[in-house]
Amino acid sequence: MLPPLTVDLNCDMGESFGAWTLGHDEALMPFITSANIACGFHAGDPGVMKRTVRAALQHSVALGAHPGLPDLVGFGRRNLDISPEEAFDLTVYQLGALHAVARAEGGQLHHLKPHGALYNMAATNAALAEAIAAAVYKVQPELTLYGLAGSELTKAGEKLGLRTAHEVFADRTYQANGTLTPRRQPDALIGSAEAAIAQVLRMVQHGQVRAQQGQDVAIRADTVCLHGDGAHALEFAQRLHAELKAAGVQLQAGRPAVAP
Amino acid sequence: MLPPLTVDLNCDMGESFGAWTLGHDEALMPFITSANIACGFHAGDPGVMKRTVRAALQHSVALGAHPGLPDLVGFGRRNLDISPEEAFDLTVYQLGALHAVARAEGGQLHHLKPHGALYNMAATNAALAEAIAAAVYKVQPELTLYGLAGSELTKAGEKLGLRTAHEVFADRTYQANGTLTPRRQPDALIGSAEAAIAQVLRMVQHGQVRAQQGQDVAIRADTVCLHGDGAHALEFAQRLHAELKAAGVQLQAGRPAVAP
Amino acid sequence: MLPPLTVDLNCDMGESFGAWTLGHDEALMPFITSANIACGFHAGDPGVMKRTVRAALQHSVALGAHPGLPDLVGFGRRNLDISPEEAFDLTVYQLGALHAVARAEGGQLHHLKPHGALYNMAATNAALAEAIAAAVYKVQPELTLYGLAGSELTKAGEKLGLRTAHEVFADRTYQANGTLTPRRQPDALIGSAEAAIAQVLRMVQHGQVRAQQGQDVAIRADTVCLHGDGAHALEFAQRLHAELKAAGVQLQAGRPAVAP
Amino acid sequence: MLPPLTVDLNCDMGESFGAWTLGHDEALMPFITSANIACGFHAGDPGVMKRTVRAALQHSVALGAHPGLPDLVGFGRRNLDISPEEAFDLTVYQLGALHAVARAEGGQLHHLKPHGALYNMAATNAALAEAIAAAVYKVQPELTLYGLAGSELTKAGEKLGLRTAHEVFADRTYQANGTLTPRRQPDALIGSAEAAIAQVLRMVQHGQVRAQQGQDVAIRADTVCLHGDGAHALEFAQRLHAELKAAGVQLQAGRPAVAP
Repeated sequence: MLPPLTVDLNCDMGESFGAWTLGHDEALMPFITSANIACGFHAGDPGVMKRTVRAALQHSVALGAHPGLPDLVGFGRRNLDISPEEAFDLTVYQLGALHAVARAEGGQLHHLKPHGALYNMAATNAALAEAIAAAVYKVQPELTLYGLAGSELTKAGEKLGLRTAHEVFADRTYQANGTLTPRRQPDALIGSAEAAIAQVLRMVQHGQVRAQQGQDVAIRADTVCLHGDGAHALEFAQRLHAELKAAGVQLQAGRPAVAP
Repeated sequence: MLPPLTVDLNCDMGESFGAWTLGHDEALMPFITSANIACGFHAGDPGVMKRTVRAALQHSVALGAHPGLPDLVGFGRRNLDISPEEAFDLTVYQLGALHAVARAEGGQLHHLKPHGALYNMAATNAALAEAIAAAVYKVQPELTLYGLAGSELTKAGEKLGLRTAHEVFADRTYQANGTLTPRRQPDALIGSAEAAIAQVLRMVQHGQVRAQQGQDVAIRADTVCLHGDGAHALEFAQRLHAELKAAGVQLQAGRPAVAP
Repeated sequence: MLPPLTVDLNCDMGESFGAWTLGHDEALMPFITSANIACGFHAGDPGVMKRTVRAALQHSVALGAHPGLPDLVGFGRRNLDISPEEAFDLTVYQLGALHAVARAEGGQLHHLKPHGALYNMAATNAALAEAIAAAVYKVQPELTLYGLAGSELTKAGEKLGLRTAHEVFADRTYQANGTLTPRRQPDALIGSAEAAIAQVLRMVQHGQVRAQQGQDVAIRADTVCLHGDGAHALEFAQRLHAELKAAGVQLQAGRPAVAP
Repeated sequence: MLPPLTVDLNCDMGESFGAWTLGHDEALMPFITSANIACGFHAGDPGVMKRTVRAALQHSVALGAHPGLPDLVGFGRRNLDISPEEAFDLTVYQLGALHAVARAEGGQLHHLKPHGALYNMAATNAALAEAIAAAVYKVQPELTLYGLAGSELTKAGEKLGLRTAHEVFADRTYQANGTLTPRRQPDALIGSAEAAIAQVLRMVQHGQVRAQQGQDVAIRADTVCLHGDGAHALEFAQRLHAELKAAGVQLQAGRPAVAP
């Protein structure tokens, strides 16, 4: 008998800051298996980080560092022309900060996923990708590196021997070469929840996605990115969670959040 | 035969930021035994922290986290009315960040000393002191907590079973109750290098300091704070270092910077 | 015939920041006569400031600068031990920034009201109050300075010949000496909307407030502070607005937001 | 008789921040005619801005706003992918802040020059250039807009009817199309002070620069950028100042710093 198919459902969390609240962290926790927790540069502050770690531990959700660019007002979403060394340094710093917060709460980190523009730049810029992977490798080589499926980032992690998780998106369409359709194109997003769930199931069960050009493309789907904001975020997470379970897919992060 | 007297010479380091340079870190390294490294809130940035850790490791200087208030423009020197929980959170965060930087460079932390206004507030405010001590205890209980000799901070550390280092000042005068003469008083500072060095020797060799009121006061001098800026900082560090050695005092941080 | 009684209803506005939204600015605009607009230090960013100015101009709401302490993560609510010179400098800076935003939108400023901890410190610290008043005086002496009724801040403004607006609170109780009951006391807040509205009417119509100790105290009520957040903020603003109008009180800021 | 040739010598100033000092502002003031004063985003703080304005006024140096990207740790030197609207907003904000500082000191602004990466992006990106020019136009249309000679920025200013100053560099080489040789090329910089001064004289007296490819190119030199840091900054400023005067060139900003 084959082992059951498994997939991880991840979501960005801890994106509040000071007096400002963002997202529906508590409500989403029951439906995800790993949390990418903002580390103070694009969002999050030491208190928010602590409360987010605490909530994730209560729901047995795997803890991940979610380092971003030092651009609070831009939420880390604007490309900033940093050097690979700067990418290394800011990844080390933010990873360490969250590690300590987790440790103070009795938990430990499971993964790292760069945020926003840092994620996007690292998907295509090999030097940045290698710097981020090296930061993880030098500080906590036991962590899993999350990156866009087939990107420079997962490649860089694999080159260093890091465990990687290839990330796919439920609500984004794909191109024939396996990349995401750029957001500025009209057909970049999948509007219907049914179609989005069907795409995820196909990726997980068959390792394939139907490209906008019509053909099937091979894709590795270790983890699915859920969005934490938006009107239907919670409802969609519940449905995806339920339908994956109904299809016999086991939901879990790559390894236990708390070591044996 | 008695074991030799020992003392630690510590100095604030890594207080540059971005394009701005402060202090004479490289020049001072040979004359100190432990470095308090700024962690990004009052000074320091991820790149500065890395270069400072690297320099300290090259000189076998013990690495310490030097967390400060989130007040970059005020250099962490202005009292900010934070809650004990906020003090805990910002200490955890900054400690973790420096820990990761040290780890990426193959080093490990030896101590933590709060900076500026956080140090001063923690010297007299028991709730803040306990929060900072708890942060160290929860994240890295093997670290030594540096605080003003006889302060609430060392007391809080000792209550939790942390190793503490009682800090004394070469160039500050003391009161009959063992506290520092407030800076606003005209006789707060010791102007002559000779007198400052004599005060240190007396503290280290005899555990006593002569108060401004004339009487001798018992004081525990585990570590002496050197200033990294100012025109004569380097010259004074060299002289103090030489005279302590000449007097047979062994200069070292409480335990090796790099574990056996 | 006596001129009609008038009062100003002010509310803190523009307290969003980057990706984070706070308050119900648009909904409240119809019910207030002046807006205190955050200037980027404790909240607000250049884009938020522009959109807030635009909305206020559309509703003929008077524009006010709302400078705060440089403490974004603390929302400017934590006391910070700044010097009078620093208070002067940060008031000038933030006032100028909002002035330019208003000018770019074809509007002009009407008043300045310090935010949070800066407001509270300036109510009792004469040196800080004088520094803030001097900043207004040197940059835009035609502005009205808003401060707690009878505080050091209104006193400092009046000493310089500035127009001042004495501010009262609908939902706070008062002491026999005319000061607010400190928030930490159990009877600091007025829970019922009816009682709060009655207190405002009495302040405006009779220049008196009933102290917690039972006696009537004279108070000058030029402007009433409304809160922009909280579950019932909008409903309360509507009711207060309606009841003041029904009582024949004219609602307006001290002078037109847009010059004749 | 022809009117005398005139040129403006500008220099970035006020780039200290909090406890950190940068540049030799006081020493350079006697040799320049206009100062570009950092406005708090990439450098400068409200206190530094005030002291810089004060020093410039003492030396009758024209005051200019020098807005930068919100990237303090990167000193505004790293490209950040901002929208034209964001460029407009941050220019308005910073311009207003410095305007108020100048006003509090009895001075007024003369020009605006974007800093670092914002300057470079606005030299080639027409949408950003137009946004910055529009910000000046909407807030203080009487200001002169400084930009790279022949760039999109000066073009955008001229389209709106703003006074512009075309900026040239003493120590940078030029290409046949009138642009600067990119810094990454080995021949980007002019090493000798003599050659740099000769280039400036030729630009000012003959409106020409010798391109790296050998031919003469027409260039409009309204203002020359001097560097405020570096070992020889002061010496070079003195020499250039002296040689321009010796050649009968009148040194002045486009119009008086203080209105008649």
